[in-house]
Amino acid sequence: MKLTVKLLDIANRGVLLHSTDARSMRVRDGDRVQVADEATGKTAQAHVDTTGSLIEPGVIGVYRPLNATLAVDEGTVVIVRSAERPASLRHIKKKMDGGRFTKDETVDIVRDIVDDILSPGEITAYVTASYINGLDMDEVEYLTRATVETGERLHFTRHPIVDKHSIGGVPGNKITLLIAPIIAASGLLIPKTSSRAITGAGGTADLMEVLAPVSFTATEVQQMTEKVGGVIVWGGATNIAPADDKIITYEYPLRIDARGQMIASVMAKKFAVGADLVVIDIPVGRNTKIPDPQEGRKLAREFIEIGERLGMRVECALSYGESLVGHTIGPNLEVREALAVLEGATEPSSLVQKSLSLSGIALEMAGKAAQGQGYQAAADLLRSGKALDKMRQIIEIQGGDPTVKAEDIVPGEYRFDVRAPQDGYVIELNNSALVTLARLAGSPYDHGAGLDIHAKKGTRVKKGDPIFTIYAEREWRLERAIEVGRTLMPVVVEGMVLERIPHDRWV
Amino acid sequence: MKLTVKLLDIANRGVLLHSTDARSMRVRDGDRVQVADEATGKTAQAHVDTTGSLIEPGVIGVYRPLNATLAVDEGTVVIVRSAERPASLRHIKKKMDGGRFTKDETVDIVRDIVDDILSPGEITAYVTASYINGLDMDEVEYLTRATVETGERLHFTRHPIVDKHSIGGVPGNKITLLIAPIIAASGLLIPKTSSRAITGAGGTADLMEVLAPVSFTATEVQQMTEKVGGVIVWGGATNIAPADDKIITYEYPLRIDARGQMIASVMAKKFAVGADLVVIDIPVGRNTKIPDPQEGRKLAREFIEIGERLGMRVECALSYGESLVGHTIGPNLEVREALAVLEGATEPSSLVQKSLSLSGIALEMAGKAAQGQGYQAAADLLRSGKALDKMRQIIEIQGGDPTVKAEDIVPGEYRFDVRAPQDGYVIELNNSALVTLARLAGSPYDHGAGLDIHAKKGTRVKKGDPIFTIYAEREWRLERAIEVGRTLMPVVVEGMVLERIPHDRWV
Repeated sequence: MKLTVKLLDIANRGVLLHSTDARSMRVRDGDRVQVADEATGKTAQAHVDTTGSLIEPGVIGVYRPLNATLAVDEGTVVIVRSAERPASLRHIKKKMDGGRFTKDETVDIVRDIVDDILSPGEITAYVTASYINGLDMDEVEYLTRATVETGERLHFTRHPIVDKHSIGGVPGNKITLLIAPIIAASGLLIPKTSSRAITGAGGTADLMEVLAPVSFTATEVQQMTEKVGGVIVWGGATNIAPADDKIITYEYPLRIDARGQMIASVMAKKFAVGADLVVIDIPVGRNTKIPDPQEGRKLAREFIEIGERLGMRVECALSYGESLVGHTIGPNLEVREALAVLEGATEPSSLVQKSLSLSGIALEMAGKAAQGQGYQAAADLLRSGKALDKMRQIIEIQGGDPTVKAEDIVPGEYRFDVRAPQDGYVIELNNSALVTLARLAGSPYDHGAGLDIHAKKGTRVKKGDPIFTIYAEREWRLERAIEVGRTLMPVVVEGMVLERIPHDRWV
Repeated sequence: MKLTVKLLDIANRGVLLHSTDARSMRVRDGDRVQVADEATGKTAQAHVDTTGSLIEPGVIGVYRPLNATLAVDEGTVVIVRSAERPASLRHIKKKMDGGRFTKDETVDIVRDIVDDILSPGEITAYVTASYINGLDMDEVEYLTRATVETGERLHFTRHPIVDKHSIGGVPGNKITLLIAPIIAASGLLIPKTSSRAITGAGGTADLMEVLAPVSFTATEVQQMTEKVGGVIVWGGATNIAPADDKIITYEYPLRIDARGQMIASVMAKKFAVGADLVVIDIPVGRNTKIPDPQEGRKLAREFIEIGERLGMRVECALSYGESLVGHTIGPNLEVREALAVLEGATEPSSLVQKSLSLSGIALEMAGKAAQGQGYQAAADLLRSGKALDKMRQIIEIQGGDPTVKAEDIVPGEYRFDVRAPQDGYVIELNNSALVTLARLAGSPYDHGAGLDIHAKKGTRVKKGDPIFTIYAEREWRLERAIEVGRTLMPVVVEGMVLERIPHDRWV
């Protein structure tokens, strides 16, 4: 059926059809249509909304994301027809029935995800079936490769390229702000793409945005890395591994964290930036994604195997994940804490030790330090100020102010101290409750919102001592956080230490 | 956030927010918001689309289905906030992880499906997880009850109420058009709700629509049934078991046919209309939903068990499902064939025998015939013309023309005969290919479109004999069907019969 285009600024991959046109095309709400522009030869698929009055019969409302593919002008006549059922749906059904994906089937599915041919429901079915029935190492490899191939890639002429990834689950994990400049200061290249917060109070991209813009194309990422040795950017802006962003979108509402998909997600991003050497941080402990070290080691072996299959050398570090890294949660507070370490602060030791340990592994892998000497080499780069200089170059090339100092970065003006109700030890500091408070206070959107934790687990406190401070940029958000904080009870102070686990148990 | 309503005629349960409002509410495309009208106290949830220009900041575009709940006028100021994550998502995740649904969890999920609180992706996750990990009999019972309780119910004062259901998978299964009037003619009540075609060429509701309107409220269904003993209506119009319609919508794209959900779906509709006695037709055979009798018997036991738990007496009949019932596919052709039998035709025997067998089971269950005499009792009601009279009353009370005759109902004017390419036997008549052709020809939307099959499987044909005729209301649809038919090869004629399975093997 020939229909005339009306462009509609709706941020959703769909088209709007008049219900009479939909009826004669035999399509219903949610069905898939193919839209073709004969003049340009471009075609795209989209899902149908219908209306009885917003547009006339003979007109098709084209929403914004569809027109990113189709690039038609208002008034163009396009050919619209009911789209065929994509083969990828058969593959997904096969997984539901306990089958294994082949390489080609994986490519079909990933391509249809990237091209928005699969609906949200269909992508969810894929994610759910993969989660329940699992993916074996072959399937994870196929998914990794397909995710790389459906996006952009970086091609460096200088090697080795270093990358790191933390699988998440521990708050305040600002270590990339130290590791990237340390690695780049050693002369290695580290084109670090990071995510924004999904469930957390600040992803690395949210933190870096305090210091400089983080949205760049893949080409820009490569050029900047070649110039200064490293960047810290938002992966979501690059079109590197775009399938992964979509898969995560549909995992999130159901809190699905499918092992195979997670490995493919991480490794695809590393492979796409051309990484040769990869360090993966696996926080382990109660309330993290990996409750026990046994499981962490299994995951590590899987990362290493997929790395081998793709020609990347991978090392993993199980890290202590039961307590936050450093003392702060929220963009400005975390950035201030990390910058202070670059500027010479030797505390907080959890942050310094973890960053140096992971940097050290990478330096050893790259031959920049002898076996067992990586930590010290990283410490030298930090203490000499070379890492700080490098960080300033990274900030500058991304368009930020390279003269920025830790003291310039201040938290929100509204603050509230949570104090110890009695003498004793902090025996419980609930990470997820702390993250919830930080988010209620406005983090990560309000950069100044967050928490400063003065007494971590195991610390002795006296009645009335501040245990942590909540910061906010807006008073009502602070009040909301305080109010909810009273019911969440993120901190428990008891008269004696029941259990104490030192930070360096894992690092 | 307070926003002013602009009503948007889009047939999709969503709202449109300006992207700046969405940002300050911390919601992204696809997130859930709660919309409250303080004046009426009404609240509803919907998913968010965003725009940069279609509406101004401060305005919320409310799509049609949401306003069915909210009932606000243009210009009303509503309170919009990011909605909390519904508990049903946790329950769905539990099923993904191999858990069992409790009664309360099932109610949460079904209510959130009916209230459009779960997104299409989330409902798909529910369906997928239930399909892969299965539902036990307790869970099926909970789902059945929750599906009944979230919809309308009929409450008859006269009993017993009879109902029948065919689980589908065999084309041309027009038997309800005979069974309902036979049962009603015996003095029993049969408030038959039917579906429209999903993957087939015509559901019973599509067929009945040739003779009379089929969209009625639950109250009307009850009143009409009390008056004339039976109806044949479209269940989708009644708000009986509304959750089921939505679940089926999301099973369809992936061709999921989850056993437990199917049982709950059928039994909920029977329970909701107040059925005491239920006959279930389970077509068995290659290319049906149930490939072997063993599996059919297992399914039958499950239907019977759920019936017992709900206080309904259920009997099942495994029927021969490898060949179409009667000779026709498509609304007008099927209705003509069924009406002719009511008017006295003794052919096609597959249709007559199956209808009488199932009717006979119901008559015996209700005590209208002695054990073993049901078939004969049904045959008497048919041959005496009482079933025809009853069908005319049913047509009349639903608003159709009661004087209609089989000969009045004609197929589409465009036709094409598919002929035997050689002498031999029809050794293959592919049901799903036949259904595809009927749909291409326009069935079920064009009532005159369909197929008339002259030579079923096992029939001896001479070269040039017509094997089947394709009918269409529009020439281009006929041509499309012919063209695709050449590649689908729905019929194979070979020089000898390789295998022949008589119709009455199962009935």
